[in-house]
Amino acid sequence: MLPITATFLDEISHDIPHQNWGKKEWDIDFAHMKRMGIDTVILIRCGHKRWQTFPCDYLMKHEGTYHPPIDLVQLYLELSEKHGMAFYFGLYDSGKYWWEQGDFQKEVDINLKVIDEVWKKYGNMPAFRGWYLCQEVSQKMGQIIDLYTQLGKHCKAVSGGLPTLISPYIDGKKALLSSQSSLTKSDSIGLKRHEEDWSEILDGIKDAVDILAFQDGHVELHELADYFSINKKLADKYGLRCWTNAESFDRDMPIKFLPIKWEKLLMKLNAAEKAGLEKAITFEFSHFMSPQSAYVQAHHLYNRYLENL
Amino acid sequence: MLPITATFLDEISHDIPHQNWGKKEWDIDFAHMKRMGIDTVILIRCGHKRWQTFPCDYLMKHEGTYHPPIDLVQLYLELSEKHGMAFYFGLYDSGKYWWEQGDFQKEVDINLKVIDEVWKKYGNMPAFRGWYLCQEVSQKMGQIIDLYTQLGKHCKAVSGGLPTLISPYIDGKKALLSSQSSLTKSDSIGLKRHEEDWSEILDGIKDAVDILAFQDGHVELHELADYFSINKKLADKYGLRCWTNAESFDRDMPIKFLPIKWEKLLMKLNAAEKAGLEKAITFEFSHFMSPQSAYVQAHHLYNRYLENL
Amino acid sequence: MLPITATFLDEISHDIPHQNWGKKEWDIDFAHMKRMGIDTVILIRCGHKRWQTFPCDYLMKHEGTYHPPIDLVQLYLELSEKHGMAFYFGLYDSGKYWWEQGDFQKEVDINLKVIDEVWKKYGNMPAFRGWYLCQEVSQKMGQIIDLYTQLGKHCKAVSGGLPTLISPYIDGKKALLSSQSSLTKSDSIGLKRHEEDWSEILDGIKDAVDILAFQDGHVELHELADYFSINKKLADKYGLRCWTNAESFDRDMPIKFLPIKWEKLLMKLNAAEKAGLEKAITFEFSHFMSPQSAYVQAHHLYNRYLENL
Repeated sequence: MLPITATFLDEISHDIPHQNWGKKEWDIDFAHMKRMGIDTVILIRCGHKRWQTFPCDYLMKHEGTYHPPIDLVQLYLELSEKHGMAFYFGLYDSGKYWWEQGDFQKEVDINLKVIDEVWKKYGNMPAFRGWYLCQEVSQKMGQIIDLYTQLGKHCKAVSGGLPTLISPYIDGKKALLSSQSSLTKSDSIGLKRHEEDWSEILDGIKDAVDILAFQDGHVELHELADYFSINKKLADKYGLRCWTNAESFDRDMPIKFLPIKWEKLLMKLNAAEKAGLEKAITFEFSHFMSPQSAYVQAHHLYNRYLENL
Repeated sequence: MLPITATFLDEISHDIPHQNWGKKEWDIDFAHMKRMGIDTVILIRCGHKRWQTFPCDYLMKHEGTYHPPIDLVQLYLELSEKHGMAFYFGLYDSGKYWWEQGDFQKEVDINLKVIDEVWKKYGNMPAFRGWYLCQEVSQKMGQIIDLYTQLGKHCKAVSGGLPTLISPYIDGKKALLSSQSSLTKSDSIGLKRHEEDWSEILDGIKDAVDILAFQDGHVELHELADYFSINKKLADKYGLRCWTNAESFDRDMPIKFLPIKWEKLLMKLNAAEKAGLEKAITFEFSHFMSPQSAYVQAHHLYNRYLENL
Repeated sequence: MLPITATFLDEISHDIPHQNWGKKEWDIDFAHMKRMGIDTVILIRCGHKRWQTFPCDYLMKHEGTYHPPIDLVQLYLELSEKHGMAFYFGLYDSGKYWWEQGDFQKEVDINLKVIDEVWKKYGNMPAFRGWYLCQEVSQKMGQIIDLYTQLGKHCKAVSGGLPTLISPYIDGKKALLSSQSSLTKSDSIGLKRHEEDWSEILDGIKDAVDILAFQDGHVELHELADYFSINKKLADKYGLRCWTNAESFDRDMPIKFLPIKWEKLLMKLNAAEKAGLEKAITFEFSHFMSPQSAYVQAHHLYNRYLENL
C-alpha cells in the first residue's frame, strides 16, 4: 500500500457540504493528519466563482467575490508551519471563463494577478512550498496546455521555482457531475485515446508543471492498473513526478458523497504502489478520513487505515 | 447581523429526513433554542397529505390521514410554555387540492374545519400565539390571494385576532424541487415581475395576513439585497410586518440537504439587517443548527453563530 | 406491532454507503441486535459484480471478483454462534447475466458452484442455518421461477434441507432505482396483477423455497394491508411461511437513504401483525437502527423501538 502523505483542503468546496469548523477544529485536524503521516496540504482552490478563502483585492474588485469572514490561507499557512507541513496554494477557478465561455486567456489573466497578490501577501511564510493549478480536465480541452504553461511558469517565476502540481481526471465511466443523479455513463475515453491526449498535453506543459497526480476514482478498479501504468510511463518520458490523487469518497453510492469503503481505498493504494507512483494525496482528509469528520464512516476509515499502515 | 429569534418546527417534514426524537430530545432542543435567543417557534404545517402532527378528527374522517403515535401540537405547546416561547400553528397542506388539482377552495374548506378543531382543542393554552398559513408560493398562482384571505381572516376571527404569517419564496435560479437532481435552473422571475406580482398579492391579502417572511435561499447572495429591499418596501406600503426566513440548510450541494456553510448564513443575516427587516426565523433549528442534530455540521454552525452573536 | 427478530447484513452493499467497521464494531453490533430481540441474521448477498464477502475461488477465477481484505462470512458465522443467532447465507448476484443480459441459466450455473464451495467451507459451522436467494424481483421476470427452483433445490440438497428464503418487492409507486432522483412513478402493478403473478410464481417454486418475505417499502402505507393480505393468502395456499421485510430506511426523502421515520416503521409492523405475518426481518439494522450507526437518526429509532416493545 502506497501511504497517504498529502491531502487536499477542500475550501472553497464545489460539491462537498461545509463542516463549519473554526480555528480550533482546524488545528485539531492538522494534528490528526500529522498522526496519519501527512506532510503536505494542498488548498484545492483559493476561490471559486464568488467565494474565496482570503480577501483577494483583485478578485473582489474585478470579479465581485465576497469578502470572507476568515482568512483561511493565513490560517492554513500558520497551521502548516506549526505542524511541520508543506502548503501548496491552489489558484482561482472562475467556474465561468474557461469552463462555460471557453475563454482560457481570461482565466489566465485573472490568475496572473492573483498569483502576484498571493505571493506578495504570503510568500514570506515558511510553509508556502508549492502551487496547485486548479483547472481540472480529463482531455485536451480548449487551450488547457497554454493555460497550464502560462500559469505554471508564472508561479515558478515569482516564487523562486516552487513546484507546480496538476490533478486531472480520467474520462472513465464514472466521470459525471455531482449534480447528475446517475453513477455511470456508457462511454469512456479508453486507454489508447487517454495515452494520446496526455502525451500531447504533458509534452506541452513539461517546462511549467512539475507534478502530475491523476484522480483515481473515475474508472473501475480492475481498469486502474493500466491507467496508472500509462500515467507513470508518460510522466517519466516528459520528466514530471508522478503522484496519485487517491479519492477517499465513494462514487458508487446515491448519496453524493460519503466516505469510501475501506476495501476500495486499500485496493487503489496497492495498485498505486505496484505501478511505482511516488506519493499519494487524498481528496480529502477532513471530510472523509478525519476522526472529527461530520461523517462517522470517516472515523472508522481512519482506524482501518492506521491498522493497515 | 440580524439575530435569529424564531424557528420553524419541521414536523410533518416534506423533504428533510426525520430525527426520531422523543419528548426528552424535544425538551432539550427547546433549551438549546432558548440559549441562542429564540423566542418563537412555528409549526411548519400540522399535516401534509396523510401525515399529521395531532389526531385531527376532521382530517382522519374526511382525508384518511393516519393517526399519529404522539400529539406533537400538545407537546410543542407545553414546551413553548415551559421555555417561554410563542407558538405559531401551521395549517394543513393537502399537497393535492391546491397543488395538483388547482382546487384552492377545497383546500380552504378543509382548513376552515381544521382551524375550528385546533382552536377548540388548544386555544386555551397560553403559548398559542399565532398562525402560519402554510401554502407556499412564489407568484400569483391560482386563487392564492383568496386562499390567504379566507384562511387568515378565519384564523384571526376564532382566536381574537392572533397574528397570521406567510413565508413565500422568490422564484430565483435555485427554486427547484428537492426531488430534482439539478441545483439551478436558467430562468428566474427577475426583480420587476417579482415586485409586480407581490404588490398585487399583498394588496389583496393585507387585511388577513400580518407578517411576511420570504425564504432567503432561492437567489444568489449578491442578488439578495435587491429582493429584500423590494419586499420591505411592499410590506411597508401594505402595512405588513417584514421578517425574513433565513434558511440554515445549503441549497448548493448535491446532498439535499445538509446544514448551510456559516459564511452564507452570516451574509444573509447581514443583508437582512441592512434592509431593515424586523425579525429572522430560521428553517430550521432542529436539523440544521442544533447541538444535538443528527448532522454534526449543525453543531459547529451553532458554535459559529454564538461566537458571532 | 410484529416485533423485528431478524435483520439483513448489507455487505456487499449495492446502494448504502459503507460504515468501515472492523471486527470489534461488528461484535458490538451483534450485541445491540441481540438486546433488541434479533435471533436471525441474513447475509444479503455473498457477492455483487466484482465485490465479495469471502474469497470465493470459483468467482475469483471465473468472474474476476476482487480478493476481499477480510472474510466476512467466517466473521458473521462466528459472531452468530457467539450471540446465539441463526445465519442465512445470501447467494451471488452478478448484476449482469440475469439482470442485464437476461441469461438466467448462467446466473444459476455460477451459483451452483458457489453453493458447493460455500457449503464445503462453512457448512460445518453450527450457526449456518439457511439460505437467501438474492435475485430480487417484483414480477414474473424472465426465467425467475426456474432460477429460484434450481437454486433453492440445490441449497437444500447440499445442506440437508436447510430453509430457503426469498424477498421480492411489490412493483408499487415507489419502486424506483436508487440512482433515479425521483421518489415515485405514476404506474403501479395493482393488486390484481400482483396476485396473478405471484400465484404463478409461488406455485412454480413451492418445492424449492420455504419462506416468502416481501419488502414493505414500495407502496403507500394505506395500501399495505391489502398487499399483506394477498401475500399471506398465497403463501398459505402454496405452503410457504410468510414473513415481512420491514425496511428501516426512508424512501420518501431526497437523501437516498437515511433511517425511516419511526411512525412509518411502527405502522408497517402493526399492519404486518394484523395480517398474521409470522416474523419480521428488517433491512437493515446496522445502518438504520443501530445505536452505533453513522446515522444518528438510527440511534433514536432504536430507542423509540425499544420503548414501544
